[in-house]
Amino acid sequence: MSCVIKENNKPDLCLIAATPGNLFSSYGVFTKNDTKAAPVLVSQKNLIKSGNNTAGILINSGNANAATGTQGIKDTQYLLNELAKILSCETHNLLMCSTGLIGIPLDTSLIAQSLKTLVNSLSFSDKAYEMAANAILTTDTFPKVVTKKLGEVTITAFAKGAAMISPSMATMLCFVLTDADLEIEDMKSCLTDAVENTFNNLIIDGCMSTNDTVMLLSSNKVKGVSQSEFYGAISSILDEIAVLMAKDAEGSTKFVQLTVKGAVSLDQAKKCARQVANSLLVKCSLFGCDPYWGRILSELGAAQAGINPDLVDIYYGPFLACKKGVANHPDKDKLVDYMKKSELSITCDLNLGNHESKVYMTDLGYGYIDENKTTS
Amino acid sequence: MSCVIKENNKPDLCLIAATPGNLFSSYGVFTKNDTKAAPVLVSQKNLIKSGNNTAGILINSGNANAATGTQGIKDTQYLLNELAKILSCETHNLLMCSTGLIGIPLDTSLIAQSLKTLVNSLSFSDKAYEMAANAILTTDTFPKVVTKKLGEVTITAFAKGAAMISPSMATMLCFVLTDADLEIEDMKSCLTDAVENTFNNLIIDGCMSTNDTVMLLSSNKVKGVSQSEFYGAISSILDEIAVLMAKDAEGSTKFVQLTVKGAVSLDQAKKCARQVANSLLVKCSLFGCDPYWGRILSELGAAQAGINPDLVDIYYGPFLACKKGVANHPDKDKLVDYMKKSELSITCDLNLGNHESKVYMTDLGYGYIDENKTTS
Repeated sequence: MSCVIKENNKPDLCLIAATPGNLFSSYGVFTKNDTKAAPVLVSQKNLIKSGNNTAGILINSGNANAATGTQGIKDTQYLLNELAKILSCETHNLLMCSTGLIGIPLDTSLIAQSLKTLVNSLSFSDKAYEMAANAILTTDTFPKVVTKKLGEVTITAFAKGAAMISPSMATMLCFVLTDADLEIEDMKSCLTDAVENTFNNLIIDGCMSTNDTVMLLSSNKVKGVSQSEFYGAISSILDEIAVLMAKDAEGSTKFVQLTVKGAVSLDQAKKCARQVANSLLVKCSLFGCDPYWGRILSELGAAQAGINPDLVDIYYGPFLACKKGVANHPDKDKLVDYMKKSELSITCDLNLGNHESKVYMTDLGYGYIDENKTTS
Repeated sequence: MSCVIKENNKPDLCLIAATPGNLFSSYGVFTKNDTKAAPVLVSQKNLIKSGNNTAGILINSGNANAATGTQGIKDTQYLLNELAKILSCETHNLLMCSTGLIGIPLDTSLIAQSLKTLVNSLSFSDKAYEMAANAILTTDTFPKVVTKKLGEVTITAFAKGAAMISPSMATMLCFVLTDADLEIEDMKSCLTDAVENTFNNLIIDGCMSTNDTVMLLSSNKVKGVSQSEFYGAISSILDEIAVLMAKDAEGSTKFVQLTVKGAVSLDQAKKCARQVANSLLVKCSLFGCDPYWGRILSELGAAQAGINPDLVDIYYGPFLACKKGVANHPDKDKLVDYMKKSELSITCDLNLGNHESKVYMTDLGYGYIDENKTTS
């Protein structure tokens, strides 16, 4: 629904609520930024106080409630107190997530006066997920919802944004709801590992936000799910969401899957992949459809992860552009055509070992600058 | 002079040579990239072999001779062998530096056939420095030469580029020539520390090149210079060169001096300053003349260096935009005018201690993308 934080009555408010009397088990992964937004700080505290039992999550878009000091904390607590009265639960069983501009005090009255309507409009349907996903968007162009069945178990995730890709939000938020009955320790390990292997391999501009939050909530209704099966499913869902985020990255014209393989360790593969994916020069070359592999080889070396440049092969799709560290010359016309595609794969083979790492990245073009040069 | 590696007979070749019979004492700081260009590898080896005694440095622009494998090494050695014959010195007393595109074999014949002319045109004058500085440029718009006198001692530096700022070069090269008689250990500590406190505080796009080289060469003619005086002078010279590089950073519209003060340690101050200076979002805001301090506070936190966001003050020039972590409201019109300037200062006071770090940075606008999207 809209409480008019955002203009034009765009949806900007959303509530996830447990069936009364049946709290969610919940686990959250939050930004590691020292400048955490007020709702992150309050939610982290409430999760501890409630022993990971959650009645609901209030989410607003349009204002991140970050860099708002003690007033930001008070505003978050006030809203959760008001919501607790309506839901007849303890305040510490409630969490809040916000997304939007940093440094602007939250107008709590707009949200507070909408809470009853919000609670009354709660429903359980695919449409509800779609509406929720819509309400947390800022400059994303489409809502992101992914559902999977695992036997009797359902897992649905909805999300917004990608790491700091646009001006009017500063976060990625993702909510994963399931009915799988899992121990809290299993929820923790599944979510933490899945985030590390999906969202943390999504590199848009390398910026870390004040509000990043990924929450896993379970109603615990369906027994007998193995942790490994659940991990497989949640990883696959978050991977799909990560791809959707990368494809919706504002200002980008290309979605690139970058694989570094042949590494002596996973750590080496990851360091190399992230260094390349974070490189402004590599991103600019992609924007210009220029297969300038020299920059990729340079960044693999700049990772200082112990590569031997004289062993490295670099492929654009099927085209081997760099063989054992020097120029190879695949069919130029075909390579030029390939570089113009909106979805590319780049593979770097270090030829040192058997480990690999995959990241999703985008290019850097005029659009990113247009999106981010001003907040108005 | 030009050996026509570059088009239009632009100068692309330069030689620094010691007076015959009086080798330079020399020390070099090189890129830490694992993908080092052939001339870097050869020069490092020759410096060891010669015990830091150097007869000359051959420098070409237009081709980095990087990612050229064993052929690149052979090409470098061949050219130094040819030059050694002409200069009547040992090959290991010669060094080479290259700058330009990566991944293209060097056309050694162009350079080899120009060596005699190059040696015959050696001269010692201010004009010679200017010509040398011109010959090593690629897309820089002006040559960079700085000279200082320290009593009887002269120190002159000439340089090109800044860390990976443009497409047709991949390096910064800087050559510091002096007649100060210094022990090699003193040269090493002076140069290493001065580079750390000047060039390493210059952040254009955070990319590390394959060819970065800073060389200090001394004819040892003037005795009695103290190490501390020399360190002061060379730091001041390299700082001036760093400012010139930042102001010439292609595609940028703003030169920004960013200071992080009030830190508990130099390490904390440096981590915070570099995180802010590397932020694409902060750079985009600067391009848009937008005083969006929230992004700066977010990046200070993203440095994960232990700041307390509730204590941070952020100034644009004299304007306090963020006071103790929340919005302050300086005169809006004056702030808007200030943000339009081409030279800005930004100060972040962590209010935790007494350490500070200063970096030079630029904005990120369309120009950077235009410069870097293609190599042609």
